[in-house]
Amino acid sequence: MEKVIRDYYIGLETGGTNIKCFIASDPYNVVSELNIPTRDPGETTDKVIQFIQSGINKHRISVKSMGIASFGPVDLNIASPTYGSIKSTPKLAWRNFPLLAKFKAAFPFPIAFDTDVNAATLAEARWGAGIGLSDFIYVTIGTGIGGGIISNQQLVHGLIHPEIGHMFVKHDLLLDPFDGVCPYHKDCLEGLAAGPAIEARWGNPPVNLPEDHPAWAMEAHYLAQMAVNLTMVLSPQCIILGGGVSQHAGLIELIQLSFKEKLSEYVQSPLYNKKIDNYIVAPKLGQNAGIFGAIALAQTIQ
Amino acid sequence: MEKVIRDYYIGLETGGTNIKCFIASDPYNVVSELNIPTRDPGETTDKVIQFIQSGINKHRISVKSMGIASFGPVDLNIASPTYGSIKSTPKLAWRNFPLLAKFKAAFPFPIAFDTDVNAATLAEARWGAGIGLSDFIYVTIGTGIGGGIISNQQLVHGLIHPEIGHMFVKHDLLLDPFDGVCPYHKDCLEGLAAGPAIEARWGNPPVNLPEDHPAWAMEAHYLAQMAVNLTMVLSPQCIILGGGVSQHAGLIELIQLSFKEKLSEYVQSPLYNKKIDNYIVAPKLGQNAGIFGAIALAQTIQ
Repeated sequence: MEKVIRDYYIGLETGGTNIKCFIASDPYNVVSELNIPTRDPGETTDKVIQFIQSGINKHRISVKSMGIASFGPVDLNIASPTYGSIKSTPKLAWRNFPLLAKFKAAFPFPIAFDTDVNAATLAEARWGAGIGLSDFIYVTIGTGIGGGIISNQQLVHGLIHPEIGHMFVKHDLLLDPFDGVCPYHKDCLEGLAAGPAIEARWGNPPVNLPEDHPAWAMEAHYLAQMAVNLTMVLSPQCIILGGGVSQHAGLIELIQLSFKEKLSEYVQSPLYNKKIDNYIVAPKLGQNAGIFGAIALAQTIQ
Repeated sequence: MEKVIRDYYIGLETGGTNIKCFIASDPYNVVSELNIPTRDPGETTDKVIQFIQSGINKHRISVKSMGIASFGPVDLNIASPTYGSIKSTPKLAWRNFPLLAKFKAAFPFPIAFDTDVNAATLAEARWGAGIGLSDFIYVTIGTGIGGGIISNQQLVHGLIHPEIGHMFVKHDLLLDPFDGVCPYHKDCLEGLAAGPAIEARWGNPPVNLPEDHPAWAMEAHYLAQMAVNLTMVLSPQCIILGGGVSQHAGLIELIQLSFKEKLSEYVQSPLYNKKIDNYIVAPKLGQNAGIFGAIALAQTIQ
C-alpha cells in the first residue's frame, strides 16, 4: 500500500494568558499539541521551538509552513524593520519582542503572521460560521472590542489594521450619563460597551449581572449600533459576535431585535427582515478560533 | 504607416438631472460625447442608443465594452431577475426601469453596471486621488451622503452595497438639539450632516452660510466622526471627500483638525500625525468622476 504524503502545518497562538501550538495537517487532524502559560517571552518561545522540533522528529513529518496568531498590538507592516514584533502591550516583558524573527531564525519553512482576531476571522471563514461567505465580520467583545473583516473573500488589513472597537456611536447622556472608560476616546464603542465599561457603569463585572438586569438592554443598544454601522459601511452577509461578553444568555437575541428596530427597513434583504438569526450570529469555533486561525494562516502560504 | 488599432469603450452616467455618454479609448481621448437632460426613461435612453450607434458608424470604431454608472437605488444582485434596474427612486417614471436590459438588447458588447458612487470611486482609483492605493474610501456629501470603498484593490459590494451615510455617530443633544431629518433613522450621519440637514438646522441652504458661520464647525464635527469610524473599520490609506457640501472653502481643513483631535493618537501613522492633508483629501476628478467611472467600469470587463 502506498503511503499518503500529507502536508503538515504549525499553528501558534500567543495569547495574553496561554500559548498554544498545534502540529497538524488540518485543525481536525492534530498530531501534537502544546498549551503553556505565557511567561517571559524568551523562555516561552524557546519551549515552543523545542516542542516543534521534537514533534517533527518524532512523527517524521515535513512541515510546509507555519502561522502565528498573536495578541496585539503587533507590527503588520511588511516593509517595517520591526515587522512581526509585539508593540506597546501592557505586558512589559513582551514589548518590542521580535516574535516572528525568532521563529524565522529557528526554522526553514515560511511563516505567516497576523493578529489573533484576524486569524480567528480566517478560521471562522474556513471552518466556522463564515463558510461560503465572501463578506462577513467577526467581532469579539470581552475586555476590549476587536474585529476582523472578510471582504471579497480576503482579510482586510489596510494601512494598519481595523480597530472596530473604537468607532463612535450615538451616546444619549440623558439615557446613559456614563462618561465611558476608553483612555483615548472616553465614550467610543469600547469605552461604552466592553467588559470594563459594563463593570464601571454598574459596579459589577458582566458575569455577575443577571439576565434581566438593565445592563443587557443597554449593551444590546450599543452593539446593535455597531452592527448597523458595520452593515452600512461593509454590507456584510453575516456579523459573528464572539468573546466573553457575547456569550451572556439572551444577549445576541436582544442585539438582533435592537438592530432590526434601528435599521428601520432602510436596507432590505430577507436576512434583515426575516432571517435575522442568520445575520447576527454566534461563532462556531469558540475557544478554538485562535489556534484554528493560526493553522489557516499557515495554509494561506502557497 | 501601420494603423493603430485601439479598443473603444462606451461610458454612460445616468444622473438625476443630466445623462452623459462618452465614446472613448480612455477618458482623456473622447471621440464623441452627449449630455442631455434626464427626462422620460424610454425616450432618453432611445436618444442615447441613437447617439452610440451613429458614433460607432461615423468613427468606424469597434467597441469593446460599455459601463453604466447609475443614480440609485439600483439592483446590483447579479442573480436577481431585475439586475440592472432602478429601484424605489423618487423619480417615479424611472422606478423599476430596466436600464441595463434595454442597453443589452440594443448592443452586442458586454456591459458593466454599478452605482454612480462606486463608479466615481473606481475613477478616483484609476485617474484621481486614489492612484496607487490598495485601500481608500470615496465619500460624496451633498443632498445625501454616499460612499464607495476600495479594499485590497477591489470595490466592496457585499450583500447589497455600502450605505455609508446612514451610520450612527455621537449626537450630543445639549450641543446640537436638532432631531435630524433622515426619514428612516432621524439622526444618523446623513440626517445630521447632509445638505438638507444643514438647511433645516440653520434655516439656510449650505451655499448661503458664510465661511465663519458655526454651521461649519458642527459639520466638521460630524464628518470627522465619520472619518474616524471609517478609519477604525477599514484602516484606509486615504479618505476622499467629494460632493457639493465638501467644496465649502475651509471645510476639509476643519475636518482634518477635528479628526486628529478625535482620533487622539490611538492609531499612529505619519498620515495621521504629520501629513493629515494627504489622508483626508478632496477628489481630483470633480464633476468628471461619474463619467470617467463609467469608462473605468467598462474597462473592468476583460
